[in-house]
Amino acid sequence: MRASYDQIAGQSVERLAALSDGVFAVAMTLLVLDLHAPAVGGVSSERELWHALASLHPQFVMYLMSFLTLGIFWVGQQTQLNCLARSDRHLTWIHLIFLFAVGILPFSTRVLAEFPGYRVALVAYWGNLALLGGVLYASWGRATRAALLKGDIPEDVVEAICRRIEVAQGLYAAGALLCVFGTEWSIAFIALVQLWYALAPRLRRAQ
Amino acid sequence: MRASYDQIAGQSVERLAALSDGVFAVAMTLLVLDLHAPAVGGVSSERELWHALASLHPQFVMYLMSFLTLGIFWVGQQTQLNCLARSDRHLTWIHLIFLFAVGILPFSTRVLAEFPGYRVALVAYWGNLALLGGVLYASWGRATRAALLKGDIPEDVVEAICRRIEVAQGLYAAGALLCVFGTEWSIAFIALVQLWYALAPRLRRAQ
Amino acid sequence: MRASYDQIAGQSVERLAALSDGVFAVAMTLLVLDLHAPAVGGVSSERELWHALASLHPQFVMYLMSFLTLGIFWVGQQTQLNCLARSDRHLTWIHLIFLFAVGILPFSTRVLAEFPGYRVALVAYWGNLALLGGVLYASWGRATRAALLKGDIPEDVVEAICRRIEVAQGLYAAGALLCVFGTEWSIAFIALVQLWYALAPRLRRAQ
Amino acid sequence: MRASYDQIAGQSVERLAALSDGVFAVAMTLLVLDLHAPAVGGVSSERELWHALASLHPQFVMYLMSFLTLGIFWVGQQTQLNCLARSDRHLTWIHLIFLFAVGILPFSTRVLAEFPGYRVALVAYWGNLALLGGVLYASWGRATRAALLKGDIPEDVVEAICRRIEVAQGLYAAGALLCVFGTEWSIAFIALVQLWYALAPRLRRAQ
Repeated sequence: MRASYDQIAGQSVERLAALSDGVFAVAMTLLVLDLHAPAVGGVSSERELWHALASLHPQFVMYLMSFLTLGIFWVGQQTQLNCLARSDRHLTWIHLIFLFAVGILPFSTRVLAEFPGYRVALVAYWGNLALLGGVLYASWGRATRAALLKGDIPEDVVEAICRRIEVAQGLYAAGALLCVFGTEWSIAFIALVQLWYALAPRLRRAQ
Repeated sequence: MRASYDQIAGQSVERLAALSDGVFAVAMTLLVLDLHAPAVGGVSSERELWHALASLHPQFVMYLMSFLTLGIFWVGQQTQLNCLARSDRHLTWIHLIFLFAVGILPFSTRVLAEFPGYRVALVAYWGNLALLGGVLYASWGRATRAALLKGDIPEDVVEAICRRIEVAQGLYAAGALLCVFGTEWSIAFIALVQLWYALAPRLRRAQ
Repeated sequence: MRASYDQIAGQSVERLAALSDGVFAVAMTLLVLDLHAPAVGGVSSERELWHALASLHPQFVMYLMSFLTLGIFWVGQQTQLNCLARSDRHLTWIHLIFLFAVGILPFSTRVLAEFPGYRVALVAYWGNLALLGGVLYASWGRATRAALLKGDIPEDVVEAICRRIEVAQGLYAAGALLCVFGTEWSIAFIALVQLWYALAPRLRRAQ
Repeated sequence: MRASYDQIAGQSVERLAALSDGVFAVAMTLLVLDLHAPAVGGVSSERELWHALASLHPQFVMYLMSFLTLGIFWVGQQTQLNCLARSDRHLTWIHLIFLFAVGILPFSTRVLAEFPGYRVALVAYWGNLALLGGVLYASWGRATRAALLKGDIPEDVVEAICRRIEVAQGLYAAGALLCVFGTEWSIAFIALVQLWYALAPRLRRAQ
């Protein structure tokens, strides 16, 4: 009986993609709720408003960085899902765990934004990145093992997706390790990696 | 005149699926708003930040459990919707009530997270689960009676979906009854059931 | 030049439907944020928790009523969109105004929930309902005049959709007028109308 | 290896459209959270409730204006996406930056709503509009250069989309410049431009 349910449950890649787009869209937009407009009472001149807005730059940079992070993982997930002919219940649950990790990113970002000098905050943030990457890696393993890919996906694409995750996660881990010198090194390094992944195709094109 | 409106209203399974994915996505992401970052003022060392984060573990576990719950019911609903050739207004309203129950799950989760030792909170949470399951059961009954299923759905799949809901709801009810011994027994039992439904296909595969 | 832009802009019914599903999904789920869990400090027994939860029933009923309202207008909108072969920029903007009215429903609901005895709050709520209905009526007029309907939509369906909006809006207006006797009459009457629209297909079926 | 990943990543226009619809839907609905219902304690008569609601009109106008803005850019983006046969990783990242600008619009709107007399607030709001327009312009440039358009898009449509953005951004910049006379001139001018773009097709039709 259960086997029968498992065979029919969670087969729609489209529904999985739609739920994922929804979770990413909410997570991307919720992040901005942490940008609070300056209080009216504390501002009485253009210069003070400018300073009040400028003093938001740590939250703003953090929002931008998390938006980049969500963008990178959204591109990574949709690249995988586009290669799938169908899903199964196992793969669906792997992606639900992925979405759980997406959902807590606003929280771990907020912790890092409030405690940028603390290693615990940095390791929590990195743990979130590692969870996102690890689950995406497991998803791709499942998809290839269970023959869920479309028939026309060449072997080197399968490997490129694996290697991409391995390299990115290696860089994130290296960035996290830099916190033995200081969390500012880690944050700067991880931010550079994110910028690289977002801008890289453009730079290569421009060559 | 009204009959004519009923015949054309609410026929799109795709729109129903899209609305459902949106409601699930928002509900899954709103849950994390209850995870508040520790206050900056109360933390002055790595150890204190660690303790502050660690002290969030009840909210975190509750969030994970509700995410699992939403995931289970999302898989259950999409499995049904995938079997439908079309919808009708009756079925659409059954699913709108289902989405209402999805929408209040963050509320009943929050009540249980704040009052884990209270039977009233547990019964309210279980009532939410029972409403979700009952409405999904009614949806399947409606779909089979009104011949809304695709032509190629075999009879044993129809029965597997019914039995699946009956078994799950039986287990939830048994878990809720355990609160005569103590709500912690109920919470642990229901959490185990949710984990089982999320992990079960993986465990069987691994055998 | 502008005419050329108008001819190509806003033609996708699918995108309009997807945006609408998103706005409805968020509005339906945001409503529940007004249901606040009881404060931990004020509760020290099962009975007190029960009373604290029971005292939320006005907000709960209001949430249910607004969910019904959103559901009714969602069904109404998707019924129209399902009949369209394509959209145009004019129709797209009519539906954006419709979504604006959807977006403020949580606000006007909250005002009515906090001031149930005030005619101003009731008229504001009814104004929101009237705006929703009026815009939907304008949308249907535009769709039929500009020949945006699919070729196979029979004439009596076109009329049924018009009459449906006219009857519903007539009932809402009558409900709003009842506030000369007392806002409680208006609220009860409008709630009954909403329940009727949600349950009616089921009751007729059961006959 | 990386080239291979770039070739397969971010190709789905449908997923990009779905994510965009989600972000727009959340941004459109979040704006209304800034409309706070009057406090119960401060109101003891119909007249006071009326005054309390009427005093919300600046926030309400600001919400309407931002909703119009989001609607204009949503129509602009979907018009472009409808013309695309496929996406690539470069274009996907341009649209992710566009969505970032969409996500911060509620924030810059809130700043302008609270500091309507401050040039800094106005320039920040205009900066957001300019970012939205600039990124959309870059997206169209990329799409035409990289031959991502559907085969049947005529040349004058390609130019109409370019000119449309140039004219709109020129008007916004002119509006922003008006702040040398006073921010109220800027706000009124930009609001008129937005109304024009929303209502223009209707007015021309009516001629």
